[in-house]
Amino acid sequence: IHPVYAEMGTTVFERMSALAREVGAINLGQGFPDGPPPAALLDAASRALHERSNQYPPSAGLPELRAAVCAHYARTQGLDLAPAQVTVTSGATEAIAAAVLALVAPGDEVILFQPAYDAYAPMVRRAGGVPVSVLLEPPHYRYEAAALEAAVTPRTRVIMLNDPLNPAGTVAGEAELAAIAAFCIAHDLVAICDEVWEQVRFDGRTHRSLMACEGMAGRVVKIGSAGKIFGLTGWKIGWMAAQGDLAVALGRVHQFLTFTTAVPLQWAVAEGLGRGDILDALHAEWSASRDRLKRGLEAAGLVVLPNAATWFLCIDLAASGIALSDAEFSERALREAGVATVPVSALYAGGSERTPTHIVRLCYTKPDAVLDEALTRIAAWV
Amino acid sequence: IHPVYAEMGTTVFERMSALAREVGAINLGQGFPDGPPPAALLDAASRALHERSNQYPPSAGLPELRAAVCAHYARTQGLDLAPAQVTVTSGATEAIAAAVLALVAPGDEVILFQPAYDAYAPMVRRAGGVPVSVLLEPPHYRYEAAALEAAVTPRTRVIMLNDPLNPAGTVAGEAELAAIAAFCIAHDLVAICDEVWEQVRFDGRTHRSLMACEGMAGRVVKIGSAGKIFGLTGWKIGWMAAQGDLAVALGRVHQFLTFTTAVPLQWAVAEGLGRGDILDALHAEWSASRDRLKRGLEAAGLVVLPNAATWFLCIDLAASGIALSDAEFSERALREAGVATVPVSALYAGGSERTPTHIVRLCYTKPDAVLDEALTRIAAWV
Ligand SMILES: CSCCC(=O)C(=O)O
Ligand SMILES: CSCCC(=O)C(=O)O
Repeated sequence: IHPVYAEMGTTVFERMSALAREVGAINLGQGFPDGPPPAALLDAASRALHERSNQYPPSAGLPELRAAVCAHYARTQGLDLAPAQVTVTSGATEAIAAAVLALVAPGDEVILFQPAYDAYAPMVRRAGGVPVSVLLEPPHYRYEAAALEAAVTPRTRVIMLNDPLNPAGTVAGEAELAAIAAFCIAHDLVAICDEVWEQVRFDGRTHRSLMACEGMAGRVVKIGSAGKIFGLTGWKIGWMAAQGDLAVALGRVHQFLTFTTAVPLQWAVAEGLGRGDILDALHAEWSASRDRLKRGLEAAGLVVLPNAATWFLCIDLAASGIALSDAEFSERALREAGVATVPVSALYAGGSERTPTHIVRLCYTKPDAVLDEALTRIAAWV
Repeated sequence: IHPVYAEMGTTVFERMSALAREVGAINLGQGFPDGPPPAALLDAASRALHERSNQYPPSAGLPELRAAVCAHYARTQGLDLAPAQVTVTSGATEAIAAAVLALVAPGDEVILFQPAYDAYAPMVRRAGGVPVSVLLEPPHYRYEAAALEAAVTPRTRVIMLNDPLNPAGTVAGEAELAAIAAFCIAHDLVAICDEVWEQVRFDGRTHRSLMACEGMAGRVVKIGSAGKIFGLTGWKIGWMAAQGDLAVALGRVHQFLTFTTAVPLQWAVAEGLGRGDILDALHAEWSASRDRLKRGLEAAGLVVLPNAATWFLCIDLAASGIALSDAEFSERALREAGVATVPVSALYAGGSERTPTHIVRLCYTKPDAVLDEALTRIAAWV
């Protein structure tokens, strides 16, 4: 067994969800909405099952979905992508794996920001790469040019960026993006941009893809997720977009990783991406849930960190006067209050004495009654 | 871009399907059935969409599907597997990639038989391994102990086996399996067994998993496919099973390759695996289609190779008195007769002067009218 997997544990999301099921806790850990999904998408999937072919679509995805992804990005982000530049994947996780396998060769160094999705570092290591961590400091998690310059070496080839940032819910500003772009160009790096939260923004916060920055179009793998856009995490439809040879290479990796992706669900996502009304309704729903959880946590005396994106709110235990580490808090909140959360320190690869251990993440995309019950339990328990 | 992908072409299956669409040919190339799929499975998927959660199931798959896979193998193959030993994947291709990433470290040699699914060799190379080819000789494609011994070195770690064998449609006999098992044990190898065709057998031909051979339970990754069992290739539901630490490692790879697999389709497959009537009806349908294509090809003067499994028949061009290479035949049959096929030489990694170039594969899981029209075209053209 390859050492990367021999030494690996179960991802924190899966672990917390399994524990939540086991003890019957309310699950605000792993990120997923848990109200009814958009009925139009369920109906579209049913129709595709019964009226369309259930056999292999093209490996890179249905032409209709690839075109819908391009139209969506043209409309929402002003990006000029062609369907041939998009490969549909079995979720954004496959896209991340494919991009790493395409770009990282043995000995290559890869800059990873911390905190990050816990898939990044193991895939880099399995590809033969060396993860180099750059810590982002809470509560603003800013990208600092000096920290980037300190991390780069002649062996650096790739930088991996998750913007908007899970778990923080922060979004990089224009100046930060420009600095990252200049850095990539100066050091001839390719950026794997996990932008799965691009559509999940609040309070009027804007988001710009690194791909749209001057000089970056040819150096970015842009990764998106229908699971996040539509709150259908169990569908596992994602995509990756890039230009030129890079797009071709990504298609090649994909053809031998999963070959293609569940076709009836691809039809439904293609239809959904054209439905601004669905996107608007989800935004309104999630925005209200976010406010509800925030108000409730604050009413319980907890300090909620600033945030304008993702399905998550983070609480600052230290600022809230709670003398527990995030891991202890999550463990005890699960067992004693019956609420599952994610300790943010679990999203720092490797960990070090600089890893913050005072931040806990909660997912708010839940029906009001679920949020209210969770808040009642947390308030009574803290 | 990693050299494996920089130098790679598009898989022959995708290429032939794209050409077939382009020129409007009948597609007997890529393997997929093209009549109506089992209605009960479509209905089960629709029900799951509307009545079940559309959010992340456990990373390793729905407990119900993992249990159904175990029950299916207990009933059909006498295997004693536990649900915890099964990981559901986004098709068998993901399972192959995951098994290779789990087991192959840089410098490891991996024995691959030729012909083979064209995903094997590139994944081995991307994992840092060195593919070592063992040619199987048509028309019987027998596994010979001497050829195995000639290929093994102290660096050999893994053997990859596809039984029943695509494209040949042959099934390893008891003595061959016993020899492969003895070889794996003697040289301390793990076998990645791609058994996606295990259920698609005819003429009373039996199949035994290498996992069921004496001493092999702990050394096998057994890979299966709902796409092949139910003729639903666009659903992309597969699985891999193994014992002990190996099962755990496979789950770890999967969690960071795709995390999990389209949940409504998992529910439907779980239901389908319990339905012997569906399996029987598909067997009868495919058996009749196989006979129909075989009879028609022979009536057109073509020599069909012996075969007892898979969705494919192979014709021997040399024995049929056709002085074209398989690549030329496929190209011209597509353009001149309007029938897409697969040249079997495309399924030999690397290729050499020993690669047979006189065999062409045709997929027969098509409605009668499609087969008849294809046969009319082929007969008129040859
Ligand atoms: C693939 S499980 C991780 C889900 C998620 O994005 C999160 O909870 O952060
Ligand atoms: C994943 S495309 C290959 C399909 C198949 O099994 C075949 O045609 O042999």
